[in-house]
Amino acid sequence: MTSAATADPASLYEKHRSLLEAARQACAARSYWSPYPDMPGKYPDADRAREAGLAAFTSHHGARFALAQAGVAGSFAASAQEVSPYTRAALGTVYEWAPADALFDAAEAAMPAWAAASPEARLGVLMEVLDTLYREHLFELTYAVMHTTGQSFNMAYAGSGVNALDRGIEALVYAGQAMENVPRAARWERDFGKTRVRLDKRYRITPRGIAVCFTCASFPTWNAWPSMMASLATGNPVIVKPHPATVLPMAISVRVFRQVLAAAGFDPNLVCMVLDTPEAPAGKTLVKHPKTAIVDFTGGVRFGRWVEQNAWPAISFTETAGCNTVVLESAADLDAALRSLATTLCLFSAQMCTSPQNIYVPRRGVETPAGLVSFDEIARRLAAAVRELTEDPKKASMILAAIQSDATLASMDKLAQDGAAGGEILLRPAPYAHPEYPSARTSTPLMIKVDKKQRALYAEERFGPISFVVACDDAEDALRQATADVRAEGGLTAFLYSTDERYVARAEDAYARAGAQLTINQTGPMPLNFAAAYSDYHVTGLNPAGNASLTDLAFVAGRFRITQSRRPAA
Amino acid sequence: MTSAATADPASLYEKHRSLLEAARQACAARSYWSPYPDMPGKYPDADRAREAGLAAFTSHHGARFALAQAGVAGSFAASAQEVSPYTRAALGTVYEWAPADALFDAAEAAMPAWAAASPEARLGVLMEVLDTLYREHLFELTYAVMHTTGQSFNMAYAGSGVNALDRGIEALVYAGQAMENVPRAARWERDFGKTRVRLDKRYRITPRGIAVCFTCASFPTWNAWPSMMASLATGNPVIVKPHPATVLPMAISVRVFRQVLAAAGFDPNLVCMVLDTPEAPAGKTLVKHPKTAIVDFTGGVRFGRWVEQNAWPAISFTETAGCNTVVLESAADLDAALRSLATTLCLFSAQMCTSPQNIYVPRRGVETPAGLVSFDEIARRLAAAVRELTEDPKKASMILAAIQSDATLASMDKLAQDGAAGGEILLRPAPYAHPEYPSARTSTPLMIKVDKKQRALYAEERFGPISFVVACDDAEDALRQATADVRAEGGLTAFLYSTDERYVARAEDAYARAGAQLTINQTGPMPLNFAAAYSDYHVTGLNPAGNASLTDLAFVAGRFRITQSRRPAA
Repeated sequence: MTSAATADPASLYEKHRSLLEAARQACAARSYWSPYPDMPGKYPDADRAREAGLAAFTSHHGARFALAQAGVAGSFAASAQEVSPYTRAALGTVYEWAPADALFDAAEAAMPAWAAASPEARLGVLMEVLDTLYREHLFELTYAVMHTTGQSFNMAYAGSGVNALDRGIEALVYAGQAMENVPRAARWERDFGKTRVRLDKRYRITPRGIAVCFTCASFPTWNAWPSMMASLATGNPVIVKPHPATVLPMAISVRVFRQVLAAAGFDPNLVCMVLDTPEAPAGKTLVKHPKTAIVDFTGGVRFGRWVEQNAWPAISFTETAGCNTVVLESAADLDAALRSLATTLCLFSAQMCTSPQNIYVPRRGVETPAGLVSFDEIARRLAAAVRELTEDPKKASMILAAIQSDATLASMDKLAQDGAAGGEILLRPAPYAHPEYPSARTSTPLMIKVDKKQRALYAEERFGPISFVVACDDAEDALRQATADVRAEGGLTAFLYSTDERYVARAEDAYARAGAQLTINQTGPMPLNFAAAYSDYHVTGLNPAGNASLTDLAFVAGRFRITQSRRPAA
Repeated sequence: MTSAATADPASLYEKHRSLLEAARQACAARSYWSPYPDMPGKYPDADRAREAGLAAFTSHHGARFALAQAGVAGSFAASAQEVSPYTRAALGTVYEWAPADALFDAAEAAMPAWAAASPEARLGVLMEVLDTLYREHLFELTYAVMHTTGQSFNMAYAGSGVNALDRGIEALVYAGQAMENVPRAARWERDFGKTRVRLDKRYRITPRGIAVCFTCASFPTWNAWPSMMASLATGNPVIVKPHPATVLPMAISVRVFRQVLAAAGFDPNLVCMVLDTPEAPAGKTLVKHPKTAIVDFTGGVRFGRWVEQNAWPAISFTETAGCNTVVLESAADLDAALRSLATTLCLFSAQMCTSPQNIYVPRRGVETPAGLVSFDEIARRLAAAVRELTEDPKKASMILAAIQSDATLASMDKLAQDGAAGGEILLRPAPYAHPEYPSARTSTPLMIKVDKKQRALYAEERFGPISFVVACDDAEDALRQATADVRAEGGLTAFLYSTDERYVARAEDAYARAGAQLTINQTGPMPLNFAAAYSDYHVTGLNPAGNASLTDLAFVAGRFRITQSRRPAA
């Protein structure tokens, strides 16, 4: 349980002011910063905290998860989709079921007092939410994420825990900046003819209205927290609509928001949760609800595009997916490059929106200090590097973790067969025996060698541990094809290996135009697709992989509007 | 002709830096500031400048207006719609006609070099554009606006001239702030395990793409210049699509942009103009053009809503219209209030998006120090105040100016007849004899007394000098009805007279929720609907009167995106 003692918002702002200021400086410099320990072992009193988190997580199994939302009227329902990818057992948590209209009404009623609070008051309360998530629920959330998404324990802690908290603070920084840009009051004086007119003007941050936040199955907190922070900081209530397979992390989050809001004297219905099922999806109804003013969406391309096209008069912020590209032109240390690529292809079984998928290689091969390495040799060595990382089940379990959904396995099976017809299988997927969870849903990666003409195979997002080594006419063609695919199909990240600085410069230009964030010649221990809060902008909005970026001013500035009144100065 | 001597962008930035800094301080304080003389007589060497401006304007009559745009191929066409509301004579200016595809291609080709320039370089060039408009074209533009829109000479100078220039500088201030928020480069260091990873990161302001800017018939420059500045400052080319009745002010503007851009070493096709006709409107084709990335639209509600709903994947910024409301609850000086209201109802024949239209009054009347003044008496005295301002043709010509379009007169005629059936005519419109232009298209205002139930009459924008005095149940009902109409039908401005501070506070809340900018108890020489650059936010985006505000961060922040590349530090 959250021990949210009553605290007034002003003192909460004072409590967190220095942290927020440090975060603001990090955003300005975009240097490394985080107030959180980056590994679970570094958490204060880690063993005890981890144990308590596991107990808290376990206590949700088959239990009612109460939020005390408006209009609940005793209805509870389990999410039948919520099955641990590790144990294959249903969590059986039973959630409040409230009709959407009741939640919209309650959120609307909660808004005026929240909107009337100062931006600092809201920032103080929301920093307290993040602090409470960190201090009291981090390991509970870690296990909840792990057993709904299939992430490894370490990734669930780092990626879905502290890094997501950092993204939340970051959103508060930008929301604060956008609101600070608007003065609260002004004295305005001007002569009209011989008369001096003096006006007192007041400006209000006026929230746009209720935000609906759709969260995804594989990485729910990382996008949800910053979106929720951006909407709430600017005065808007949030209704969270979790993916049916990954409700628990959001239910825990929503309850903390509600408890901290209530303890600070605000209506907890500022943050609600609405559930649906794959059989009866509520998405379109929520987006088109007359009280919906903002939509945040993380998930599949098809519904994401529908949201972008149909949310009006609501505004939308989307992150969907794409085919992230690698261009391998030349390498100073080919082994190190292939090892880094292999690691990133394996990380969480490439179930991340930033995971690379297509590796474009000149047909004649890749220049190295030891001479030209042929295309076939590159494909073979990359596949070997992936195999080496995944052969040992213990190592595999740490890097591949589990597969979130049966659908991913099914699509891999199908593609492995189709791919055999269209391309050449470099690595055939197989389950590996998870050392800790014998029933875990696992698979080693599928790798396919194709010609660039076989776009039907590779030129779309293939979710899961699936990658393509694509033979291109030459280095220029590899870059042209990769960036054209990003522009057409979307792409968040891109990776380049080249020792030719002129080629690197052309690639920087081409990827900037295509709108994928480029990592150049990186090797070593950092996962290539690591996106650092306060430093790396996530999604550009320039291609079909989404229209919003974590975090720029555009992510926050439209969530509120400015209203004013003016009158003769006293 | 513009004497745009070759000047490098960096020196242009230095030239205008102190002015831009002063504007920035004005935006932060939202106090009064302008670098320009507020009346034409204060312009340096005013008589000569005015004469030269008239000569320049006259020289366009029946003449070819060359822009040397791409793809012109010798095609020119007159805008048959371009007829002076004062002389009723066609201007006969013959404009370049270029196929839209050629302009899009040329604008796209021009973009990379402009995008690669620094934000400061772009700001320097754009400040030079505004300075050139001011120094060399202000009176030419004043006459061009006057003889296309029907504005008076003084309003064309002040409202469409210097105030529009101020709005342009203001947009540059916000664009500069949004871009400054993004550092150009960063060094990022973090430990992964025992290894320190050091990355050099570079961030680019990447323009979204080509902006299409639709300008309106009655006030073209005031919205166009800030929109163009916002798009261009953030790296995007602009294709201007003027209203067919008001091409000349935009043609003059576009030519200045092109000349200054070329003189600074950039491709003039960064700013193009495309023409259409009422018979063959190009609007939808331009909005849905595959190369359109941004749409700025000022004009009618219907097409504005279509733009908002259909611009995707382009983003849109709209200002349309609504029924601006007045609530008259009580007054310390009723005569002064009615005089101010009457003046504002007459100003430019209420052909401004900020003109009031509906005056909501409690049925029992309005409290004053002299006692209760009945509803009928209020209506009568307001109509009398309007009559007094418009009885003398010389006075009328200065305040009412001319009617932009025959359609406005026709709708007034129709309404005067319908209104007689539905409401009670307080003031019947009639042409007045313009002392200087005997053929001028003129009309005194139409005023109608209605009951609040007669929403079919008043609950939509009635363009032109048309207003309604609306009888409401009581003071609360007046406020409720007025703000409900704003929420449903749109509204940019609102005006309140009340001596009851609790009522004022409720009205401030209600109008903030409805999204109309409120002026309280203002009397005296300032037109009530005067919107000051750097101080008054114009349009809130919270009701159907438009989705964008001049100028907030949201107006600029989405016009560019942030792309990045990162690599191991050297």
